[in-house]
Amino acid sequence: MKLTEYLKMFNKILIIGCGLIGSSILKSSIKNKISKSIYVYEKSKKNKKIIEKINKKINFIENLNKDIVGIDFIIVCTPMSEYKVIFSKLNNLVLDNSIITEVGSTKRNLIKLTKEKNVILSHPIAGSEVSGPKFGEKGLFKNKWCILINKGKKNKIKIVRRFWQKLGSKVILMNAVEHDKIFAITSHLPHLVAYNLIKTAQDFQKIQKKNIIKYSAGGLRDFSRTASSNEIMWRDIFFSNKDNMISSINKFVKNLNLIKKSIKNKKDKELRKILSNSKKVRKQIINLKQDVSKPDFGRKI
Amino acid sequence: MKLTEYLKMFNKILIIGCGLIGSSILKSSIKNKISKSIYVYEKSKKNKKIIEKINKKINFIENLNKDIVGIDFIIVCTPMSEYKVIFSKLNNLVLDNSIITEVGSTKRNLIKLTKEKNVILSHPIAGSEVSGPKFGEKGLFKNKWCILINKGKKNKIKIVRRFWQKLGSKVILMNAVEHDKIFAITSHLPHLVAYNLIKTAQDFQKIQKKNIIKYSAGGLRDFSRTASSNEIMWRDIFFSNKDNMISSINKFVKNLNLIKKSIKNKKDKELRKILSNSKKVRKQIINLKQDVSKPDFGRKI
Repeated sequence: MKLTEYLKMFNKILIIGCGLIGSSILKSSIKNKISKSIYVYEKSKKNKKIIEKINKKINFIENLNKDIVGIDFIIVCTPMSEYKVIFSKLNNLVLDNSIITEVGSTKRNLIKLTKEKNVILSHPIAGSEVSGPKFGEKGLFKNKWCILINKGKKNKIKIVRRFWQKLGSKVILMNAVEHDKIFAITSHLPHLVAYNLIKTAQDFQKIQKKNIIKYSAGGLRDFSRTASSNEIMWRDIFFSNKDNMISSINKFVKNLNLIKKSIKNKKDKELRKILSNSKKVRKQIINLKQDVSKPDFGRKI
Repeated sequence: MKLTEYLKMFNKILIIGCGLIGSSILKSSIKNKISKSIYVYEKSKKNKKIIEKINKKINFIENLNKDIVGIDFIIVCTPMSEYKVIFSKLNNLVLDNSIITEVGSTKRNLIKLTKEKNVILSHPIAGSEVSGPKFGEKGLFKNKWCILINKGKKNKIKIVRRFWQKLGSKVILMNAVEHDKIFAITSHLPHLVAYNLIKTAQDFQKIQKKNIIKYSAGGLRDFSRTASSNEIMWRDIFFSNKDNMISSINKFVKNLNLIKKSIKNKKDKELRKILSNSKKVRKQIINLKQDVSKPDFGRKI
């Protein structure tokens, strides 16, 4: 046995669902020597072909049956709408020695999973507007936050934390309610607003019968990127975080009406205060190294 | 006289207001040999110091008085809220042989300018979230659209068109009403929505007393960039394009309520249709070379 073998965290890990996140975990696990062997469960034949090319030693599992008993670590990376089927299959197996985690973007809806099995909930704050294993990136989780929900056995949380840290993530613990509230504002509402902005531009284009999209350099462009994210994933998120989405939309509309009123009545000072205040957030984001300070002059095409 | 001198478009040009756009025109005019000499009128001492360093041959004009008679081409690049003062000064001078243009982001409010003087209205679709001459870029207008308003003498429009083309822009003619409607949707509404989103996140942070900004990687980040744009410029735009802003906000809110309802009632098909439709716009934007197709995995910090 080589020395590097001893450094591996697990003997066998299984990735269920190998889209953008699953394939990035796969590549990153290979690079960071997470496990002696890696198993993949993926329904799509097209995706399987792409995954095969990543590494010849990947073992494909055809069914979630007793074959997976004995696997140390299972990561569920399917859209959340498939969890019901996946976890009911996992529940039928004796997986007492396995740790199971998943990567869904909402948590309150998943908390019941932590009661029945050795499930620890994770949310790596990483992704892209593209989906599928062809875009998988081994460095996707590097220096990114990964939120763990502080529910479940402490020693199991510790192992899941170590797993994400090995992939390069900064790990933080939260409770599910807090998690869903925060990400409703920092992630889910921005996506919803981007989708809505593009819809509004499309409606306008239809009525005006003019190609306005070609002048999108002035703002629409960045939103169109966000709004081209996977619709299954985002439908699942919006539905799962329903209450927070509704309350965030209401807060957003209330503020929008405030700004509208200040424009209507030409309230100079009031409007300028709102507009200049947002520079503070920008400063924070740059100081926290969430973004670069280098100005954007339009993309270099 | 050197051969290159003959190729210059103008003998004397004057840039009034030398912020991001003015200084980018300055640098680009030098690079593209637009004029034999270049004059600058800039009130801020701090800005003047920065501009002096760009080129030692730049001539500063202290007052907009008879000294500027004889200048071929004047480009007004101040915030629109200063136009009243600037143009009343220009109107007091005999500038029959000068062509005057400006770079404001709305046009219907400026159409009266084209009646009194040799004014042709321009709108270069270029900019950034940063402002001031320290960020001036000689390539800012390259391959970008520049809208000219088809009001004024044809031969003068022709010269202004050639000027922007020399700076690398693709020029298109429009009427002022059409211009303001289109840019309300492709530029002004996206900026307003970005400002509003940041305000909503700030309000939330205040109530929760928690630093949520540090999790901004999931969507808020791009909006914060847009929302850190200059507040004077954007107040001017929102006020000048008031009617279109109000009607765009109303359309936006109407769509937002539609999405909210589909989330509330878990209307799967309806929501998925809205979310997947926006991919069409993304495709258009990439095909039109307004953006790169390379996926975004978070900025490389």
